[in-house]
Amino acid sequence: MAIRTVVWGENIHERINKAVAELYPDGMHQTIANALNADGAIAATTATMQEPEHGLSQERLDNTDVLVWWGHRDHGGVDDVIVERVAKRVYEGMGLIVLHSGHFSKIFKRLMGTPCALKWREAGERERVWVVNPGHPIAAGLGEHFVIENEEMYGEHFSVPEPLETVFISWFQGGEVFRSGMTWRRGAGNVFYFRPGHETYPTFHQPEVQTVLQNAVKWAHNPIPPIKAVLEAPNVPVEVALEPIVERGAKLHEAGEDGYK
Amino acid sequence: MAIRTVVWGENIHERINKAVAELYPDGMHQTIANALNADGAIAATTATMQEPEHGLSQERLDNTDVLVWWGHRDHGGVDDVIVERVAKRVYEGMGLIVLHSGHFSKIFKRLMGTPCALKWREAGERERVWVVNPGHPIAAGLGEHFVIENEEMYGEHFSVPEPLETVFISWFQGGEVFRSGMTWRRGAGNVFYFRPGHETYPTFHQPEVQTVLQNAVKWAHNPIPPIKAVLEAPNVPVEVALEPIVERGAKLHEAGEDGYK
Amino acid sequence: MAIRTVVWGENIHERINKAVAELYPDGMHQTIANALNADGAIAATTATMQEPEHGLSQERLDNTDVLVWWGHRDHGGVDDVIVERVAKRVYEGMGLIVLHSGHFSKIFKRLMGTPCALKWREAGERERVWVVNPGHPIAAGLGEHFVIENEEMYGEHFSVPEPLETVFISWFQGGEVFRSGMTWRRGAGNVFYFRPGHETYPTFHQPEVQTVLQNAVKWAHNPIPPIKAVLEAPNVPVEVALEPIVERGAKLHEAGEDGYK
Amino acid sequence: MAIRTVVWGENIHERINKAVAELYPDGMHQTIANALNADGAIAATTATMQEPEHGLSQERLDNTDVLVWWGHRDHGGVDDVIVERVAKRVYEGMGLIVLHSGHFSKIFKRLMGTPCALKWREAGERERVWVVNPGHPIAAGLGEHFVIENEEMYGEHFSVPEPLETVFISWFQGGEVFRSGMTWRRGAGNVFYFRPGHETYPTFHQPEVQTVLQNAVKWAHNPIPPIKAVLEAPNVPVEVALEPIVERGAKLHEAGEDGYK
Repeated sequence: MAIRTVVWGENIHERINKAVAELYPDGMHQTIANALNADGAIAATTATMQEPEHGLSQERLDNTDVLVWWGHRDHGGVDDVIVERVAKRVYEGMGLIVLHSGHFSKIFKRLMGTPCALKWREAGERERVWVVNPGHPIAAGLGEHFVIENEEMYGEHFSVPEPLETVFISWFQGGEVFRSGMTWRRGAGNVFYFRPGHETYPTFHQPEVQTVLQNAVKWAHNPIPPIKAVLEAPNVPVEVALEPIVERGAKLHEAGEDGYK
Repeated sequence: MAIRTVVWGENIHERINKAVAELYPDGMHQTIANALNADGAIAATTATMQEPEHGLSQERLDNTDVLVWWGHRDHGGVDDVIVERVAKRVYEGMGLIVLHSGHFSKIFKRLMGTPCALKWREAGERERVWVVNPGHPIAAGLGEHFVIENEEMYGEHFSVPEPLETVFISWFQGGEVFRSGMTWRRGAGNVFYFRPGHETYPTFHQPEVQTVLQNAVKWAHNPIPPIKAVLEAPNVPVEVALEPIVERGAKLHEAGEDGYK
Repeated sequence: MAIRTVVWGENIHERINKAVAELYPDGMHQTIANALNADGAIAATTATMQEPEHGLSQERLDNTDVLVWWGHRDHGGVDDVIVERVAKRVYEGMGLIVLHSGHFSKIFKRLMGTPCALKWREAGERERVWVVNPGHPIAAGLGEHFVIENEEMYGEHFSVPEPLETVFISWFQGGEVFRSGMTWRRGAGNVFYFRPGHETYPTFHQPEVQTVLQNAVKWAHNPIPPIKAVLEAPNVPVEVALEPIVERGAKLHEAGEDGYK
Repeated sequence: MAIRTVVWGENIHERINKAVAELYPDGMHQTIANALNADGAIAATTATMQEPEHGLSQERLDNTDVLVWWGHRDHGGVDDVIVERVAKRVYEGMGLIVLHSGHFSKIFKRLMGTPCALKWREAGERERVWVVNPGHPIAAGLGEHFVIENEEMYGEHFSVPEPLETVFISWFQGGEVFRSGMTWRRGAGNVFYFRPGHETYPTFHQPEVQTVLQNAVKWAHNPIPPIKAVLEAPNVPVEVALEPIVERGAKLHEAGEDGYK
């Protein structure tokens, strides 16, 4: 079965900024979804901020294998209830791919536990994306590096936790570097951050970028059944301990009582 | 200069539960602080939930190198403002040591970005803490393992991010295992979780446990000046780029304008 | 195409020890290969130490996606040339799964860069293998833990590098713990160590163990084309630099000369 | 007590290449040792390849806390016996700092378990070293980045294992990037690789580079007593098991017999 993928788009600058609208007349989310659907293993649809529940109802998320997230203009406008809902689905096993300015999205900061801050410069300069982990599935089919001729600069220090693996590092014309592709696991969910994708440039039309996105969706897909009990902290009664033990000492909880949360 | 350490205690069960009060008549926080002060390199004081701002004013945190956290009964009662204040100080470089039931504290979940759930059984069973990283400074002075004769069981799966390093793994009499000592870095702050420390047992009076706590404070201490700009995402104007570049393409931001957060 | 898997067996104790021969009349390698072939996605054959080149000719390795390694009695008897050949194929992208006593094999120590030592006790005691990373593909289809009723004990400290991820931790009846499933990447090759599998017990006949092996082969399989240049350190001449630069200062090497190795 | 540090120099190009000799008339090792000794917490001496046992007798290594390694011209000329001796001391707890062309030294490849290959260009181009982990002790006292005006380029892919932490990433004028500062632990030994330091440039005279080296020695120093048993795999007899167990099933080893290595 194809990987059920939802591309979430903030969908603001496409509607209010002429340059963005010309590059992405159907919205960035649609361009990304089209690129993903060019891979037969992926079945991508879109959701936007303006839809009810931002297009991310519980039912829809329950039927989503991988969520791709692009936002920029109004991170604060995303409902906290939806953020927690997405986080829980990640813990259960849904993959999450965060793009570019999504570094400051509520969901990314929520899962990283850090500020996720960085330096930036909007000058359309050259970015050269280097593969530093050529055996990683997200780098499949790429050469040693690829060039994005016009991009926004993001510079270190990028305040995220040390990743499981670093896949890409970018060189910028103006003198900066950036860890542009990194992976983490949160619960059973695979998380990938990918740096490129400023809305005033045609980045998401570029073939190498589309290859990365396809690879990332396939890498992030965790086929195991959802781990629904992810927020639970079950008591294991003495009577059913795996090895026979006898209760000793004082205790706080009566039999069958819940723990404190 | 000695490491300025604050031991934060929830200070509830010590006052309302007879067994706990007998073990820790001055509060668990005081027992822990005394143990830390037995190490000349550490200067520990205490703070409790009942104090104004939970004893964690901005000024006090600004003068704290390492914060030790024990809570259990009322995680939800900790003010979110204080949680964010502590998180920011960790990013700036303050060390944080989270003990036992603190796995479910707001600050630990905030920094991990995961549920931090686990299994538990309150039966006073034997715990054997194994050193799996004998070269780690937190294990200094310990043998291959040590036994805590009566402890609450915590069992895997413990839903935290893969750590930088695993230092301790516990064996439980009833058949479970648990990653009892793990390290992470969040921003410039070193974070250590240590499993033992159920309030109905004399765990914090045990010498090996006190050795771990002293080691952990010294390990967590980051002597660099605080990184105050940790939440900022500064623009780097084209005019001051490190390498000369010429601005190209469309842009969203006027010169000097802030980015979106 | 099915994953081309070679199960390498030392094949000594099966021939000289009656207890082992009765448990594994066709050799442990054959039992393991049969278990793998029960998964339609895997095509497993065997190789043994006694064959020419230990059954691992360059041509055969070039056509192997994943190598499974079990050895114990005569690690020193494995030809160093074959060890380097296997290591190079791992760097190129071949997966490697090392079983039980293979912790002391030349190839595992070669790839880890550490002693890979541990404690042991041969008493047929109970081992309980806990899943500490339930979202990891190697744990798919398993419950929270499984029991191997009779196994050799391996105890910490296990002197390997900190893994990418810890998947399993074992509890032993005699009081020890062990990190029984860990992953690393070496070059483009995925490496997994799995603890159980002492030859005097029927471990490899147990369904849960067979599930782990099937999962591990699928996880270790890297479908990218082999990275053949893995040992090369190419010079990038100034004339073809990606950005125009002018040579400055003194240099050691004439144009076209190789670097030092 | 000051950190007993030995700076090992290959000491070849300083003697046969005029440009190198002019930059480092007393040898690179002496320049580095002088820089380290400017920090009162460090007591550095030197050793060179030409001395008996390359200056690294067992007794000297037993009295060394941190070893700094620079080699380039004749990696192959280093005696394998000395390499194993150094490796064992690292496992026991000696710190190791590998500089620049030492990426291809026997000891670094031995401890990494990987080819440690990379791209290179000797053109005296500009290198900008970015701090990507500003809270790490090795980055203490540095700004956000520093420039080395003339350096050899090293480019990714650098085939080393994923590090514990990445501290520095370099930007090169010619368009490449490189992970220039990475940490690993091997046994009880802290290992740091630092990229800059080509012998035809005055890199080791630069204050920021000297700061990194001082920081690195202090970080790498592990004050615990040496773990002398690092290569041993002790049997734990049934009679002294921590929890009472009864031997069951067949076994390979008689009581008191050694395991296979």
